Amino acid sequence: MKRGQHHGALREALIDASLQLLDTEGVEAVTIRAVARRAGVSHAAPINHFPDLRALLTAVATRCFEHLLGAARAARDARSDAYGRLEAFVDAYIDYALAHPGRYRMMWRMDILDPEDPALDGLVEGLYGDVEEMVAALPQPTRRIDPTTVVIALSSLVHGYASMRIDRNFIPASDAITGQPRQHVMLKVALGLPID
Amino acid sequence: MKRGQHHGALREALIDASLQLLDTEGVEAVTIRAVARRAGVSHAAPINHFPDLRALLTAVATRCFEHLLGAARAARDARSDAYGRLEAFVDAYIDYALAHPGRYRMMWRMDILDPEDPALDGLVEGLYGDVEEMVAALPQPTRRIDPTTVVIALSSLVHGYASMRIDRNFIPASDAITGQPRQHVMLKVALGLPID
Repeated sequence: MKRGQHHGALREALIDASLQLLDTEGVEAVTIRAVARRAGVSHAAPINHFPDLRALLTAVATRCFEHLLGAARAARDARSDAYGRLEAFVDAYIDYALAHPGRYRMMWRMDILDPEDPALDGLVEGLYGDVEEMVAALPQPTRRIDPTTVVIALSSLVHGYASMRIDRNFIPASDAITGQPRQHVMLKVALGLPID
Repeated sequence: MKRGQHHGALREALIDASLQLLDTEGVEAVTIRAVARRAGVSHAAPINHFPDLRALLTAVATRCFEHLLGAARAARDARSDAYGRLEAFVDAYIDYALAHPGRYRMMWRMDILDPEDPALDGLVEGLYGDVEEMVAALPQPTRRIDPTTVVIALSSLVHGYASMRIDRNFIPASDAITGQPRQHVMLKVALGLPID
């Protein structure tokens, strides 16, 4: 990072350096000082962009949610049937988590991020909105169910499964009865959809 | 910790010191050196009980799973109907996670624990076995579903929900249609049970 490099470039360089630290060492290694060192700037330089670690991590999480949502939406849009669109979105979501465990472990840590940040909040709400829309497009059960409850249940299911995979609790496997990937059968069971 | 204190007492003191560090600072603060310091022994003393950090963390996770399972089983056993037993077990599980977030965040980290440890493995398998038994006691859906898929789905749902609560993504709320706590309606929806 050279002196005179323009303003926005330093911000991006600090986010890139944070992503590298997340990928190699995990969230506890990300400090303003370590990020400045990796970006090759003085430890005081980041202050112009990020007043504190929470602000930096929030910008990093925002970048991660952009990538995750971009991948999940592209996968969804390549399918046309209602269930297939949800399945493709969820598969891409889980793939992102498994490919970037250090990033994924940090992205939902609202205790260390700023959940009021408009960019981050917009992306998270966009994700929930996507899920709600995809669920509403499915064949509806005869009973009425609070859509927020379904979105929270589905988000919990997918977040829990992705986290358990990252943390080496589950391995990918096929469902014993249908022969389908377990993560697809889980989705169908949780949504009350036909499983074969 | 005094010299001459008997052997088993040092092991327990090291686990206690680790739990305090988990509760106050999180898993990244737990090192052999920090735990020895907190327990008031030399940094070489733990080696007789724990050859490395993984072994220490595994013993700590084992203690946590004992407490969690004890609480969840006691709650379950105070109920007699099949659904009520599962609901009470899950409620107690989530209460444990929320009361001990530092411990809960570490307990499923099989990437830093030793999943082959007989004591830890026995408890984790016991937990899955309990869930499978409670699910088998519920009114069965007409379609056949691989029981392992149901156990993994339910474990993911509850782990994901507890983690999202710890990480400040969700707040406890009532389901808009039934007025019941959302975590109960989520369970019923995921299991295909009547919600009112």
